[in-house]
Amino acid sequence: MKGLDGIDLGSMRSMVAAFPQLLVAGRLDGTLEQNASRASRRGIRGLCLCGIGGSAIAGEISRSLVIDESPIPVLITRDYSIPAAVGKDWAVIVTSYSGNTEETLSSFEMAAARKATVLNITAGGELARRAKAGTTHLIPEGLQPRAALPLVFCGLHTLVETLVDLAKTDFEAISRKLSRSAESWGKKGQSPGDLARMLGNSIPLFAGCKHLAAVAYRAKCQICENTKGVSMWSEMPEASHNEIEASASYLDHSIVPIFLRSRYEEKRMARRLDAVSEIYSDMGCRPVRVMVDAESSVEEALAMTHYLDTVSVELADIRGVDSLRVDRIADLKARLARPH
Amino acid sequence: MKGLDGIDLGSMRSMVAAFPQLLVAGRLDGTLEQNASRASRRGIRGLCLCGIGGSAIAGEISRSLVIDESPIPVLITRDYSIPAAVGKDWAVIVTSYSGNTEETLSSFEMAAARKATVLNITAGGELARRAKAGTTHLIPEGLQPRAALPLVFCGLHTLVETLVDLAKTDFEAISRKLSRSAESWGKKGQSPGDLARMLGNSIPLFAGCKHLAAVAYRAKCQICENTKGVSMWSEMPEASHNEIEASASYLDHSIVPIFLRSRYEEKRMARRLDAVSEIYSDMGCRPVRVMVDAESSVEEALAMTHYLDTVSVELADIRGVDSLRVDRIADLKARLARPH
Repeated sequence: MKGLDGIDLGSMRSMVAAFPQLLVAGRLDGTLEQNASRASRRGIRGLCLCGIGGSAIAGEISRSLVIDESPIPVLITRDYSIPAAVGKDWAVIVTSYSGNTEETLSSFEMAAARKATVLNITAGGELARRAKAGTTHLIPEGLQPRAALPLVFCGLHTLVETLVDLAKTDFEAISRKLSRSAESWGKKGQSPGDLARMLGNSIPLFAGCKHLAAVAYRAKCQICENTKGVSMWSEMPEASHNEIEASASYLDHSIVPIFLRSRYEEKRMARRLDAVSEIYSDMGCRPVRVMVDAESSVEEALAMTHYLDTVSVELADIRGVDSLRVDRIADLKARLARPH
Repeated sequence: MKGLDGIDLGSMRSMVAAFPQLLVAGRLDGTLEQNASRASRRGIRGLCLCGIGGSAIAGEISRSLVIDESPIPVLITRDYSIPAAVGKDWAVIVTSYSGNTEETLSSFEMAAARKATVLNITAGGELARRAKAGTTHLIPEGLQPRAALPLVFCGLHTLVETLVDLAKTDFEAISRKLSRSAESWGKKGQSPGDLARMLGNSIPLFAGCKHLAAVAYRAKCQICENTKGVSMWSEMPEASHNEIEASASYLDHSIVPIFLRSRYEEKRMARRLDAVSEIYSDMGCRPVRVMVDAESSVEEALAMTHYLDTVSVELADIRGVDSLRVDRIADLKARLARPH
């Protein structure tokens, strides 16, 4: 539990509040970084990130931050299998916080059988047992998997940056920035609690582009899991070519569009998002704009995830829901464990 | 307009009914297939499919059908830019039915500047004008872009199969099968009209895995565009790890989960989908199961898309909505065209 000091593991609010602390609690040790660095120097043809849920989202955010620079393709898989193209000259990062996600373990076996360079991130479980010595980044256990995103992301993104040979993110600096930003929430702009109160019982629709598309998806999942409420997400500009037509009935269904805006948008993307937001307003709903202070895309993605994670626990409180319990996921696991 | 004989281009119902006919109207001519075949023999490191909306979905379906066999990675981009990894030893298929989609044209320029092997699919417009001689598969114009999916898919998938060196799909045979299947809708299982009546004013949530995840996304977009109504989609098994928690409020929001089931599901995937469906039932909503007769994954994806496209026009009729008009997309284009 080293690195998790002071976090109440029985409180989702406490785990979410610890986001900045978790960003550095998962720092990569030297051995794994050296292995990744050696694989990179030998030359790899591609990188595949395997995970489900929060682990996959960590991969999505990481991929979105490097694809404009990475000389090799970066794929994400959220399934039992990996693409046929992933072979011995590929690197695969397998991520499962519990270490027992059945789809991810299945992907791990396929990657190992294909003799890819396999690196793993987990807090233990079956994945830690099956992995070859020296290939696993072991992170502190005890968190709810969805609260482990920053813990997973720190090591994962450092591995990705090493494998695709890009400059390393300074997570210490971002962690300090995120702590300070959280203190000023509500002083300029709306606080997570303000946004949660505004949402009430409506359905949030998070929309973002590039790295903020992954953040939008994360926010959707957090609302689902922490509040047991319906939530939607879209990727821009794609949604402006089809989903936009449904805005005619957003008011009827209490859907509140939330645009995750970036300091790094191109002008034509910014114009498009502004225009879609205007059209949604004309349809009678009240779109919300979320933007955070940040000095880099990676800081922006993490700061906005921290902010929206907090919105989800505030919203659970407002709705009188226990954000910690995930009864249907537990029910599903129990059903799948029954003999058949 | 060769290939579009007998289709009423002023009727979405007529265009959707012509799905089987459109599957062969877009057959690839020999020149482009030879170019693709030459590129494949020279060796390409990856394939990138660029498009937005229906064109991107054609790519999603195609990718999902080949990734378990393709020796090279297949990426999809729905944005202004393409990943840095896409370079001169890559093939890029740029698809825009109108030929004027600004994001796709921007991707085209990037791919050309990187000296990739660029092949284009379009009915004309700026893309046809800018493309090098002999690199464009010109398809008949006049359809609504979303109705052009089968027309685009036929040539696109043949190009993908050629580039990644897989056996070619017989679209003539599938076209005949789809025509016969459509005649028997409602004789066994529910007809598209039955499903549309059952949906009424509720919000459909389409869920599928592998090639049917792309079909689920397509169905969501078709409901949005053709009925101007809210619609949702999810990819399985991912959604069974997070979104499942929101099912506690599906009944309150009139959300109807629609499971797109495949004849090609692995046993553990089938068990998972069955269990999620049972949990949704326990939450009080009435999940629907959609399955079609098919002799291959590609036929299954196309037959189900044809079925669900038809559901969307039936639902538009029930809701008294003109499925042809897309006022908000037109509004957005007008706003973006204004001088700034």
